[in-house]
Amino acid sequence: MENGNHHSANGSAKPSKTTGKAITCTAAVVHGPGEPFVLEEILVEPPQKMEVRIKILFTSICHTDLSAWKGENESQQAYPRILGHEASGIVESVGEGVTDLEEGDYVVPIFNGECGACECCKRVQTNVCTRYGVNPMMKVMESDGRSRFWAQDGKPIYHFLNTSTFSEYSVLQSACVVKVDPQLASNLKILTLLSCGVSTGVGAAWNTANVQPGSTVAIFGLGAVGLAVAEGARARGASKIIGVDINPSKFSKGRAMGVTDFINPTELEKPLHERIREMTKGGVDYSFECAGNLDVLREAFLSTHEGWGFTVILGIHPTPRMLPIHPMELFVGRGIAGSVFGGFKGKTQLPNFAKECMQGVVDLEKFITHELPFEKINEAFQLLVDGKSLRCLLHV
Amino acid sequence: MENGNHHSANGSAKPSKTTGKAITCTAAVVHGPGEPFVLEEILVEPPQKMEVRIKILFTSICHTDLSAWKGENESQQAYPRILGHEASGIVESVGEGVTDLEEGDYVVPIFNGECGACECCKRVQTNVCTRYGVNPMMKVMESDGRSRFWAQDGKPIYHFLNTSTFSEYSVLQSACVVKVDPQLASNLKILTLLSCGVSTGVGAAWNTANVQPGSTVAIFGLGAVGLAVAEGARARGASKIIGVDINPSKFSKGRAMGVTDFINPTELEKPLHERIREMTKGGVDYSFECAGNLDVLREAFLSTHEGWGFTVILGIHPTPRMLPIHPMELFVGRGIAGSVFGGFKGKTQLPNFAKECMQGVVDLEKFITHELPFEKINEAFQLLVDGKSLRCLLHV
Repeated sequence: MENGNHHSANGSAKPSKTTGKAITCTAAVVHGPGEPFVLEEILVEPPQKMEVRIKILFTSICHTDLSAWKGENESQQAYPRILGHEASGIVESVGEGVTDLEEGDYVVPIFNGECGACECCKRVQTNVCTRYGVNPMMKVMESDGRSRFWAQDGKPIYHFLNTSTFSEYSVLQSACVVKVDPQLASNLKILTLLSCGVSTGVGAAWNTANVQPGSTVAIFGLGAVGLAVAEGARARGASKIIGVDINPSKFSKGRAMGVTDFINPTELEKPLHERIREMTKGGVDYSFECAGNLDVLREAFLSTHEGWGFTVILGIHPTPRMLPIHPMELFVGRGIAGSVFGGFKGKTQLPNFAKECMQGVVDLEKFITHELPFEKINEAFQLLVDGKSLRCLLHV
Repeated sequence: MENGNHHSANGSAKPSKTTGKAITCTAAVVHGPGEPFVLEEILVEPPQKMEVRIKILFTSICHTDLSAWKGENESQQAYPRILGHEASGIVESVGEGVTDLEEGDYVVPIFNGECGACECCKRVQTNVCTRYGVNPMMKVMESDGRSRFWAQDGKPIYHFLNTSTFSEYSVLQSACVVKVDPQLASNLKILTLLSCGVSTGVGAAWNTANVQPGSTVAIFGLGAVGLAVAEGARARGASKIIGVDINPSKFSKGRAMGVTDFINPTELEKPLHERIREMTKGGVDYSFECAGNLDVLREAFLSTHEGWGFTVILGIHPTPRMLPIHPMELFVGRGIAGSVFGGFKGKTQLPNFAKECMQGVVDLEKFITHELPFEKINEAFQLLVDGKSLRCLLHV
C-alpha cells in the first residue's frame, strides 16, 4: 500500500519521485492503551527544514515501546500514535538545510538526538541534547508543533520519542538520524539494534561506568539492555559478571554474553547485596540496574564496594517514589548515575561503534531471537510481554 | 593540672618522662546532651600498639562537635565523653609498631584515618578507610574495645570521632595522626584548621568536584565549610561563586573567600534553583550543599546545569528521610556525590596541602574569627551556636 519510491532491500538508491510530496504508506497505529496495533494507510508529509524522511526497512521492539503501548504513564499518553524507536532504513528525502544526509543514505534513527549546537552537545562530558534529547511528552515535530503523520480521515497521528519507526516511512529531525558507513549496508538488519538496546547497555558499561579490565560487575535484570551491559563488560575484560534475574532461563542466554555467575533472588535466604558482597570480597566495582524497580535499585547500590563502587541506573522508573538512598550513604564513597543511550553521542560516536560491532568487538546477532514480518507486530509484542524474546526483528 | 612532659609552645622536644605511664591532665568532659563542658582532671593511658599519645596545643570547634554535644543523634550518644576533632599538637609518645611518628613530631589529628593497608586505602579513587574511617558510633579504641580516658572515680570517659581533642592529652590510632613538616612548626596554630573544616571544604572543590578554571559554583550554607569551598573554588579560578545563606551577614565574610554573588533565599520570590539558573545560563557547573538540609539539597541539585552539573553533599543529614531526588532526574546528566574530609587521603596528602596553604594558595587565617583559652570552651560553643564565629581557636 505504498506509492513512494521503491528502494530495493539491498539499498541501491534511485532518484526519489516522492521528494516534496506526501507519501501514502502503511503504519502500525495504536489507538488506546494496550489496544492492538492496527495496520492502516496513513499519509506521511515531506520533511520540513532540518528534517529527514526515511524509509524504514527493519524495526524491533523495546520495553520502552511496551511501556508506552500499555500507557503506563498517563501524562505521556497520546492517541492515535505511531510507536517504535529501534530501526534502520534509507533516507528517502531531506528537508531544507540538511547537509550531512542525503537520499539513499543508510541510517539508524536515535531517540536521543544530537543537535551539535546546544551547550550540552558542545561538551564532551555528556550526550544529553537540550533540544532533541529524550522527551516522552513530545508528540509533534519541534519546528511547527504539528505532526507529519495523518490518518485517512484527516486527523493527525502523533509521533513518539523523536522516531516513530512502526511505519514504512517516518519523518525525524536530522539530529535524530545517524548515517552508517555504506560498506555496512549488508548489515543494516542487525544495526537496528544500535538504535537503542545494545547501544544503551554496552555504552553504559563503556562510557558511563568505564568498566576496567579485571573488574567485577553485577547486572540486575537480564533483558536485552542488561545482557548488552554484560556484552560490554565482557568486551572490556571484566573478570566476574554476576547476572541477577528472577527468571532462571535468562542464565543460559547470559552465559553467551559473558555472564559468569547467576543469582535468582527468589532462591536467596539473605539480602541480595550481602550475597554479592560475599562473592566479591566486599562488593562489585560496578552495578547496573536494568529492572526499573526501586527496591532492586537499592540492592544494586549496596552491592558495590565502599570507596569506589559505582551504580548505573538504566531502568525506567515510572513510580513517583524518590531514590531509596540516604544522603549519608553517599559518604562511604559509593557513586550513582543515570545513563541515557549508553552515554553515546549518537551522530558523533555511533558510526564508529557500528564498525566495532561489525569487527566483532560486540556480537549483535546474539540479541535477535525472533524475526517476523511487519504485519505480525501484535505477535511480536506478545513475545516480549511473555519474556520469550530479547529482540524480535520486524521486516518492514 | 598536668604532670606530663612540658613541651614548650615553640616545640623543642625533650625526651618524655611520661612514656609508658598514665598522664593526669585536664579535659573538657561532656556528661549529657547539651550540658556544659566540665573541665576536670582525667587520666590518659599510654598508647597501645599502633597508637599515639599527643599533647594538644590548639583545638577548635566544628558543627559536628556542636551536633554531638547536643546529642542530635540518639544512637550516637555516649557519656561522659571527650569531644573535639579539630586540633594540632605534638607527639608525646608512640605505641608499639608505630614507625612513621615519634616523640616531638608536630601533628594534626584526622577523624577520617588512613590505615594504608585496607582495600580502600590501596586505591587512588577514595579516601574512605575501611578500618579507621568516620564512625560516629565508635567510642572506644579499636584494638581492645576499651577507652584510654579515665575519670578520677575510675569510670571510663568515651572517645569521639577517632580524635577527642578537647583534652590536654589524647590517644589516637596512628592512622589518624598526620605529621607536619617541622619547618611549619610556627604555623601549628592555623594548621589546626586542616583537621576538618578547611580541608573538607577546599578538598570538596579540588578533589571531589575537581572545579575547573572559569567554571561556575553555587554554595549552599556559608559556615566554615561552605566558605572553605569558596576559597578552594577561588583558588581554582572559578569565574562565578554564588553564596546562598539566610544570614545576610555571611556575605561580607564570603567576599573575602571569593564569593562573587550572594543570594538570601528568604528574599526570593521564585525557587532558588530558578534564580541560579537565570544567573548562570542554565545552571552552575558545581553546587555544594553545606547546610545539612534535604530541601536545600534538592535546590542545590536542581541548580546545576543539565548534562554535566555536579552536586557535592557536605552537610550532615541526621534525618531518616531519603534523598529527595527522583531516579529519572539522574537521566538528564546531573551528578551527585558525598564528600568526606574533602576527598583527601589524610596521611598521604595533608602534608603537601599544609605546604600549599603556607604558600598562600589557601588563606587559613581568614577562618579564625576568635581565640580563647581552653577554659572558656563553653563560651566558644556559644559563639558557634549564635552564628558569631567561623572558627574559635582554643589555646590548650
